[in-house]
Amino acid sequence: MPRYTIAALSDLAARALARAGASQEMARATADALVAADAQGLASHGVSRVPQYATHLSNGRADGGAVAVVVRAKGGAVLVDARCGLAFPACALAVSEAIARAREHGVAFAGVTNSHHFGVAAYHLGPVGEAGLVGLAFGNSPAAMPAAGGRTPIFGTNPIAAVFPRRDGAPLSIDLSLSEVARGKLMVAAKEGKSIPVGWALDRDGQPTTDPKAGLEGSMLPMGGTKGAMLALVVELLVTALTGAAIGAEASSFFVDEGNRPRIGQAFLVIDPAALAGRDVYLERVETLIGMMLRDAGVRLPGARRTALAAKAVDEGIEIPQALAGQLESLAG
Amino acid sequence: MPRYTIAALSDLAARALARAGASQEMARATADALVAADAQGLASHGVSRVPQYATHLSNGRADGGAVAVVVRAKGGAVLVDARCGLAFPACALAVSEAIARAREHGVAFAGVTNSHHFGVAAYHLGPVGEAGLVGLAFGNSPAAMPAAGGRTPIFGTNPIAAVFPRRDGAPLSIDLSLSEVARGKLMVAAKEGKSIPVGWALDRDGQPTTDPKAGLEGSMLPMGGTKGAMLALVVELLVTALTGAAIGAEASSFFVDEGNRPRIGQAFLVIDPAALAGRDVYLERVETLIGMMLRDAGVRLPGARRTALAAKAVDEGIEIPQALAGQLESLAG
Repeated sequence: MPRYTIAALSDLAARALARAGASQEMARATADALVAADAQGLASHGVSRVPQYATHLSNGRADGGAVAVVVRAKGGAVLVDARCGLAFPACALAVSEAIARAREHGVAFAGVTNSHHFGVAAYHLGPVGEAGLVGLAFGNSPAAMPAAGGRTPIFGTNPIAAVFPRRDGAPLSIDLSLSEVARGKLMVAAKEGKSIPVGWALDRDGQPTTDPKAGLEGSMLPMGGTKGAMLALVVELLVTALTGAAIGAEASSFFVDEGNRPRIGQAFLVIDPAALAGRDVYLERVETLIGMMLRDAGVRLPGARRTALAAKAVDEGIEIPQALAGQLESLAG
Repeated sequence: MPRYTIAALSDLAARALARAGASQEMARATADALVAADAQGLASHGVSRVPQYATHLSNGRADGGAVAVVVRAKGGAVLVDARCGLAFPACALAVSEAIARAREHGVAFAGVTNSHHFGVAAYHLGPVGEAGLVGLAFGNSPAAMPAAGGRTPIFGTNPIAAVFPRRDGAPLSIDLSLSEVARGKLMVAAKEGKSIPVGWALDRDGQPTTDPKAGLEGSMLPMGGTKGAMLALVVELLVTALTGAAIGAEASSFFVDEGNRPRIGQAFLVIDPAALAGRDVYLERVETLIGMMLRDAGVRLPGARRTALAAKAVDEGIEIPQALAGQLESLAG
């Protein structure tokens, strides 16, 4: 498989996105985020998404000229309108606002409306952890999962991410979707012609399936059954009702060319430990809890594997499939 | 089984708690919360807890004379110290502060430290929904679940609750613990001499068990496997690292007489829809999403059953087991 340095792969992705219509800023923010996912071993959320993003920029499902703006703000609350551009510049603006507002007001909640796919949720919390603040991220996505007791997909797979800075070293970084598995895993399996385990998805008739394509046309199963479906409802409401964004069932799939502007939503909660029990207490509690966890030999800290892979990618670069490399080179012109 | 009106049962519970050492305010706040749980059909979190609370008040694990106070505040962030009293007055103070601060700053995060069992998490969000605000509640509890990959219980069952007010009628009320089932269900099964399904708990050797007593001595299983364990970690950190409260593994069980002051933590997030996309947009989005959900015949809205049972309890009163009634009457003197 072709291997790229992080900088080279990011430049390639950015050129492909810019050629499809993204502004320089949007292309750069998006490329950096996708390559960061590849570096962390999350290929399903990496530059494999560039061809689809490029199609959406070309056919108008995403507006490459959009400039994200703050449309409402009050104290710790702020609403960013992505104006139907790709999500990354809007999320960066929202997080930057949330950090500044949390420092001033102790806590901040930044919503993003009229947005698009925001990739790896935890990525956006990087600056929050670097600022020594606690952060949570939420997002919805085109309908993938039914409500508890239902059959029709309504909610997205609705990721939740969290960052907790530590005294030394990389912050704890937690990132999970509320489906049993991320939809991206079905997309990768479908591309590779592999089957999926029972329990990941239902087909369009509501029956269990091992065919990833049938699963993508049907519905994903929530993690934890009814409880997972209830958490998906909470995330869906946080990122749509508070922001005005589209509900999953109103947004066309990211995985097809044609469709509407998804106009989905994201939200970022940022809390300053200094405004509550204080920074010293915070750091002591985090390290005490981590110490307890690591006493069990089988425990790995969330984010540790991703951080280690990212460090390795800095030295060794990133391999991507030959076919994808060809697609990206072709899109970049 | 003996039947009480809501007022009579609350008076009985309050007298029992006051006789064990709770201040009038603490006894009343606690009794009202427990009876509300019984009214909603949640007997495991109702007045069945009074004998244990009374023991903790008597032996000093809870301080009946404690007065909860705000110990730190900055903008939307506020920290309440329960001072090792029962949790209910402290949670009421935290929620009241969070509502006022969310109205002023758009969003508020209220932590509670040095706390005790806070019963049904969603109960505390009642005033948030009545104020037309969105609320989330989090809490930890004495160690019940291991970290992902671990065997030793560290986290509590760590409930998450949410309230989303609607245009008309009762708010959506979501409430779940992150264990496969609430620990209270094992306690009820143990009291009734019933077995529990495999998948609810492990015994102290880390083996699956159908014996609720063995499960209470062992560990609860998180809902959704690794993802549930990661969410439990997020909740644990939110309510301990930000507040200074004890980690689950540092707190003695609620279900035994002897032990330390649990000093666990709670947190309440309150967001004002008017500070983001606005109240009209918020209400439209909520009703649109609910409309989508109810198109599937099998879907029941979260909280609907509890609300209906509570309304029935107003008319018909609440039945409790004979043995419990005897205990309460005896404790009340």
